[in-house]
Amino acid sequence: MFPFSRDDEDTFKILIATDIHLGYLEKDAIRGNDTYNTLNEILQCAKQNEVDFILLGGDLFHDNKPSRQCLHKCITMLRKYCMGDSPVRFEILSDQKVNFNTTQFPWVNYQDENLNISIPVFSIHGNHDDPTGAEGLCALDLLSASGLVNHFGHSHSVEKIEISPILMQKGITKLALYGLGSIPDERLYRMFVNKQVSMLRPKEDQDGWFNLFTIHQNRSKHGPTNYIPEQFLDDFLDLVVWGHEHECLIKPTLNEQQLFYVSQPGSSVATSLSPGEATKKKIGLLRVKGSEKTFQEIPLKTVRQFFIEDVVLADHQDCFTPDTPHVTKKVEDFCFAKVTEMLHEAERERLGCPLTPEKPLIRLRVRWTHCGLQWRRREQKEIKDKNSIDYGKLFKPTAVEGLRVEDLVKQYFEAAEQKVQLSLLTEQGMGKAIQEFVDKDEKEAIEELITYQLRKTQLHLQSRGVTTEQDIDAEVRLFRDSKKNTAEEEKDIQEAMNRAKAHRLERGDGDFADQDVSDVTMDSDEGSVPVAAPTRGRGRGSRGRGGRGRGRGESDKEMP
Amino acid sequence: MFPFSRDDEDTFKILIATDIHLGYLEKDAIRGNDTYNTLNEILQCAKQNEVDFILLGGDLFHDNKPSRQCLHKCITMLRKYCMGDSPVRFEILSDQKVNFNTTQFPWVNYQDENLNISIPVFSIHGNHDDPTGAEGLCALDLLSASGLVNHFGHSHSVEKIEISPILMQKGITKLALYGLGSIPDERLYRMFVNKQVSMLRPKEDQDGWFNLFTIHQNRSKHGPTNYIPEQFLDDFLDLVVWGHEHECLIKPTLNEQQLFYVSQPGSSVATSLSPGEATKKKIGLLRVKGSEKTFQEIPLKTVRQFFIEDVVLADHQDCFTPDTPHVTKKVEDFCFAKVTEMLHEAERERLGCPLTPEKPLIRLRVRWTHCGLQWRRREQKEIKDKNSIDYGKLFKPTAVEGLRVEDLVKQYFEAAEQKVQLSLLTEQGMGKAIQEFVDKDEKEAIEELITYQLRKTQLHLQSRGVTTEQDIDAEVRLFRDSKKNTAEEEKDIQEAMNRAKAHRLERGDGDFADQDVSDVTMDSDEGSVPVAAPTRGRGRGSRGRGGRGRGRGESDKEMP
Repeated sequence: MFPFSRDDEDTFKILIATDIHLGYLEKDAIRGNDTYNTLNEILQCAKQNEVDFILLGGDLFHDNKPSRQCLHKCITMLRKYCMGDSPVRFEILSDQKVNFNTTQFPWVNYQDENLNISIPVFSIHGNHDDPTGAEGLCALDLLSASGLVNHFGHSHSVEKIEISPILMQKGITKLALYGLGSIPDERLYRMFVNKQVSMLRPKEDQDGWFNLFTIHQNRSKHGPTNYIPEQFLDDFLDLVVWGHEHECLIKPTLNEQQLFYVSQPGSSVATSLSPGEATKKKIGLLRVKGSEKTFQEIPLKTVRQFFIEDVVLADHQDCFTPDTPHVTKKVEDFCFAKVTEMLHEAERERLGCPLTPEKPLIRLRVRWTHCGLQWRRREQKEIKDKNSIDYGKLFKPTAVEGLRVEDLVKQYFEAAEQKVQLSLLTEQGMGKAIQEFVDKDEKEAIEELITYQLRKTQLHLQSRGVTTEQDIDAEVRLFRDSKKNTAEEEKDIQEAMNRAKAHRLERGDGDFADQDVSDVTMDSDEGSVPVAAPTRGRGRGSRGRGGRGRGRGESDKEMP
Repeated sequence: MFPFSRDDEDTFKILIATDIHLGYLEKDAIRGNDTYNTLNEILQCAKQNEVDFILLGGDLFHDNKPSRQCLHKCITMLRKYCMGDSPVRFEILSDQKVNFNTTQFPWVNYQDENLNISIPVFSIHGNHDDPTGAEGLCALDLLSASGLVNHFGHSHSVEKIEISPILMQKGITKLALYGLGSIPDERLYRMFVNKQVSMLRPKEDQDGWFNLFTIHQNRSKHGPTNYIPEQFLDDFLDLVVWGHEHECLIKPTLNEQQLFYVSQPGSSVATSLSPGEATKKKIGLLRVKGSEKTFQEIPLKTVRQFFIEDVVLADHQDCFTPDTPHVTKKVEDFCFAKVTEMLHEAERERLGCPLTPEKPLIRLRVRWTHCGLQWRRREQKEIKDKNSIDYGKLFKPTAVEGLRVEDLVKQYFEAAEQKVQLSLLTEQGMGKAIQEFVDKDEKEAIEELITYQLRKTQLHLQSRGVTTEQDIDAEVRLFRDSKKNTAEEEKDIQEAMNRAKAHRLERGDGDFADQDVSDVTMDSDEGSVPVAAPTRGRGRGSRGRGGRGRGRGESDKEMP
């Protein structure tokens, strides 16, 4: 039994999403509409579920200065879905001037007598759409000024931060919504260490509030002080919605030390081809009634599928040794079969999902040995014995076939029918993925990176030829072997690494490739997971009963 | 007697403005807020006058891609002044989808049930804020999508234009509002010539409508086909509001051939230092009741004063001949006295206008002879006899003083007290004015251009020294003498001319310097002028009685 009815007058229903990155690749002929379609889906979902409000964890926009088209589409969708006659049924008890301080209209939009808002959107800013310029305005503030979004969590000081919650009440339920817009991690880390960050609490009935906090920072440790440890956050919080990290880890997980939950919704679009982006994209529906709460995961249907796979040729020693006859052709066939397999998998998964784009993103990474392979893999085979083989021999121009693998693959695709196009991708996401690959840890490895972006899934194999209409864009790039072993090489590599680092620092994006992440089940099923609420002596009242599925392919479970 | 009461339920009250150029020089420390202050004044004026709507003739924004700050301020002001509970008391009778076609909300904003609009704004786009990109969106469309502006007159075809009016009715008064957003002049000219532009009219009661047309094109002839002759426009029109031209010629003037009136409101900010910009800036208040109409001119109070004066030294032969002792010092004193005089004039005029910025724009143009002087001047003296003097001798390094005038002026200001700052202006408007000065017609003239932008008006002269706090930015540039007489010189000049032309073509701005404009009284008084309506056999009913002053320093008169 669900512990409280869906449309209870005491129940806050909050749609939670983050990192929508509106406008990402908007000029791409294939992927250009992805982010718009997904924002549309998210807003539609909010409307269908009659949520009380939408909470966004930052990076609504991909670009700090979104294009006119991007703003126009965003404004249009917000006006379409978030305005209307459905009444908003919660009150704001705190001083709104404190929270909404970036416009001349320092109050929540749904209380503006000139605007008929049905679904208020509350959003912090991310690192992509962060405030700039003398006025300290961000793209979100244009929406704020228009009355379409409530931008909160904007701290104007770089010395000291006091996070004052928006205190909301719906029937018996009291919700304190805290937010902190993106701040450079190093700076915020230092401020935490120097005790310059404080979260204010209402004086009365402190334990009667559900304390929800939204933050947009590195959650993964990118450097000693280049992230925000969960331990820094106040332990009176109940749920932290963590934006910025793109991997969908939306299921609230308990921080055992702080005794709060953390939900990391992840982005609703893959802005890089890193493994973290390959997890199924979801948004969340949080329900809070008194001290009871449930978290429902809602898989997004409009998100382009993304499959990534690593192949280590050393794992197939029987096929790929220097002495194998026609070894390059074998490698080529092997890769082709892998890609085909991935496409079939994508096709199977997409069945019955008409909203999902036809063409998936596919990435196949081929390496010779496990050296430098730091990817998280489900099964990591023992590789010591394989390392004794001199794989380098394979790729010398004087080797059996006299060709390197990327040349082979290139030749192969070039020789294929006209419709199979091979070209060097300069596309942003791809370029970034490549750039991220140049990393100190992997510097010593002899490696190749082969990345395909498959643009059509209708792959039919007829004997060995690719015969149907396919546009295959691929990037084949060798990082080590393509460079001459000179001082310039070292310099070039160092420069590439610095660029990649600067880029990453600037972007602040999660790069999961080098992280020591324990293996998390990437469940693509639609369930949600009950989590035990810690007893913190705060008199949270009755802990609920087990949840049940409620149609539409989404299930709710309470945090008991 | 005013022919009809101000707040008559049959009277349309329309505030007319154009070329607000929001964001022009917004980064300038002194002038940065000018356009914002003036938009604020215009909107405030609309509210105080309880107008039915605001009509804008294009170039609301100076930049095609306005800065975030600019958009934010514009949105804020529109929301502040144009939303509210005052009811809008006219109806729209025509198919709104036809007129409002740039958003997913193809209806007038005040009829949107989710927006509480008190003053609808109707605007065409100008050449500055024209539609771009695959989507054909302009900055105005962001305001449209937000529901703050009704963008109309956007033709999507480049072959053929059908201008369909917005048919409005208030009581007995029927108004047909036509608009055509900016189109490159040459193209539109060609379309007119090829009979590809048509203005649709309501089928019923054709003569019962007041036909108001807004256009944003060159009105002055910049080339054989680089403007739109008034004769091209349909003669059923009653009033044409002509945007784009920055000179305020707002008083409706009769086109004797077409028998319609043309009002050229002019920009509300000087975006160049050309003479046309020096006329007093105004907006208009049009009242239409049945077949009666009045046009009230409202001077803007927040506009920065701009004074321009030409000095031809040849007119003062007694002072400035090569043989005059200390001629350079005399020229210097003469210029200084002129500037001082202009500052005093500005100060006098500003008295009692607390909204007017303290620091005026001052431009003094000094020439040696009348050669190449094409400026419109009130009094053009006979100069033939003066031309016989070899003024060139004055400026040769070997001449009496061995200095050129700009050097002298420079030296003078540099020698003045610390607070009198002389620096080279790189400011946009100034640069443009200079550039425009390089013109084929003036190529042969020996000329100097001295332009001052006076930043403080508190000029006190004590004997010959400037003693009080003044910031004087000045640009002193010699176009001819500063260049060595080589092939490079000719090339440079040609290039400068080409640049200036390209710039002007691109900008399409009115440059009155070279125009053959008959002398129009530039009255800075606040009256409006009655104009005789032509008898065109259209049964316009009774022609009203003479207008009277009605307080607030603005007077109305009917077009009898």
